[in-house]
Amino acid sequence: MSENQFAEGQVLFEEKNHKVVWLGWEREEGAGAIQTNQYLVIHGTKGILIDPGGVHLFPRVVAIISRYIDIDNIETILFSHQDPDVSSGIALWLGVTKAEIRISELWMRFVPHFGLVDFSRLKGIPDSGGSVRMSTGTGIDMIPAHYLHSPGNFTFYDPLSDIAFTSDIGGAVFPKDQHYLFVDDFDSHIPLMEGFHQRLMSSSKVCKNWVERMKKQNVSIIAPQHGALFKDDSVEKFFIWLSELQCGSDILENFI
Amino acid sequence: MSENQFAEGQVLFEEKNHKVVWLGWEREEGAGAIQTNQYLVIHGTKGILIDPGGVHLFPRVVAIISRYIDIDNIETILFSHQDPDVSSGIALWLGVTKAEIRISELWMRFVPHFGLVDFSRLKGIPDSGGSVRMSTGTGIDMIPAHYLHSPGNFTFYDPLSDIAFTSDIGGAVFPKDQHYLFVDDFDSHIPLMEGFHQRLMSSSKVCKNWVERMKKQNVSIIAPQHGALFKDDSVEKFFIWLSELQCGSDILENFI
Repeated sequence: MSENQFAEGQVLFEEKNHKVVWLGWEREEGAGAIQTNQYLVIHGTKGILIDPGGVHLFPRVVAIISRYIDIDNIETILFSHQDPDVSSGIALWLGVTKAEIRISELWMRFVPHFGLVDFSRLKGIPDSGGSVRMSTGTGIDMIPAHYLHSPGNFTFYDPLSDIAFTSDIGGAVFPKDQHYLFVDDFDSHIPLMEGFHQRLMSSSKVCKNWVERMKKQNVSIIAPQHGALFKDDSVEKFFIWLSELQCGSDILENFI
Repeated sequence: MSENQFAEGQVLFEEKNHKVVWLGWEREEGAGAIQTNQYLVIHGTKGILIDPGGVHLFPRVVAIISRYIDIDNIETILFSHQDPDVSSGIALWLGVTKAEIRISELWMRFVPHFGLVDFSRLKGIPDSGGSVRMSTGTGIDMIPAHYLHSPGNFTFYDPLSDIAFTSDIGGAVFPKDQHYLFVDDFDSHIPLMEGFHQRLMSSSKVCKNWVERMKKQNVSIIAPQHGALFKDDSVEKFFIWLSELQCGSDILENFI
């Protein structure tokens, strides 16, 4: 991981007026917190922010966003699910942006517990998903990914870049001081994500269902919330691996 | 729900030097947030606090606790899982108490995302559970309840009162202005909890597994984090109902 990547993030896709940015990492993983990825989709001058994370990431994420667009131009913030590493900064983000926040309808009554929340700017995502439009004309698809791990969880998909933002799906936990942005060697990456998926994902049935759903798209990059991104032949390898994984309630007896 | 109950909570169990207190409700469910129950187990002068909840509950919960014990005497705070309505007040609680916090090992690296957290006072609960001791001699059992709904979720059980603190399991969502503390008519309570369990709980297999585990105890009261408490014959009725429920990935096709 280069110093520039820490400070500036990295453009994952750029074509005409459309850009997708990975927003960097914490230089130090503060207080043992799990490392997280945040993403920004820019179309024209407007942006959609994906899973911006908790309070302690806020200064870095704001700073990197401001290298790319005016923070006032973030129209929507998408939360894949209710976990603290995804959504606990909700009150801060409502404060500094004018954005509308989208999260599963299931979690609409839970997120106010993070603190005072302006309900007029919080809009549920129905279980079946849908699409969120930007004023500049394009949209991001919200694809159901329930029970992976959260009961109300979505994969966000940008049809212009074909990047899938998959929250915990595809997540990996790096050993201290080991980082890479893209998975180059799929097999050697498996040990970093195997335990995470076996324990977090609730069953093989829901993994298979999600893979079938995603294979209908033309996914170029899998961009999870933890660990490295998958591109090229790692995308298909990940789909095969996940659809064959035994996890969660399938193997409950292994860990209790 | 009487004015006294809002203001003072209610003692659920009292025998010798052992007491269990339900800590009341918000008079108004602020900003559309789901209603939650908090509980305090007192043995001698010391206490264990269970699922104290988020930021906006904090003043009420602190005030009611202080009617029963000195807040400095809370030795442990138990978090059943990582949801904002359970654990987002973690930094506040670490600030005002000297307590150690226990949460699933799975969520140890996630809760720091709520804000600065003193790791020396955060201790994981292994997947297989265990028991947390109080300095005054008794203990609370931590019983695995994974995937109901959270992948790392525990039921807390007080063997002196036989009260089971079951977090989302047994939870109900009341219509506005309808509240009751105990389920008197089980059948009429089902509509308030059916959708909640069908959507949140990840599969019938994990429900059955949990019921079998709980039936080994002599449960007198099921005390969930949302809605009403179950006692007398409602306890057994709830176990039967839950073990027969189809939910989550069993019925995924019903909601996507």
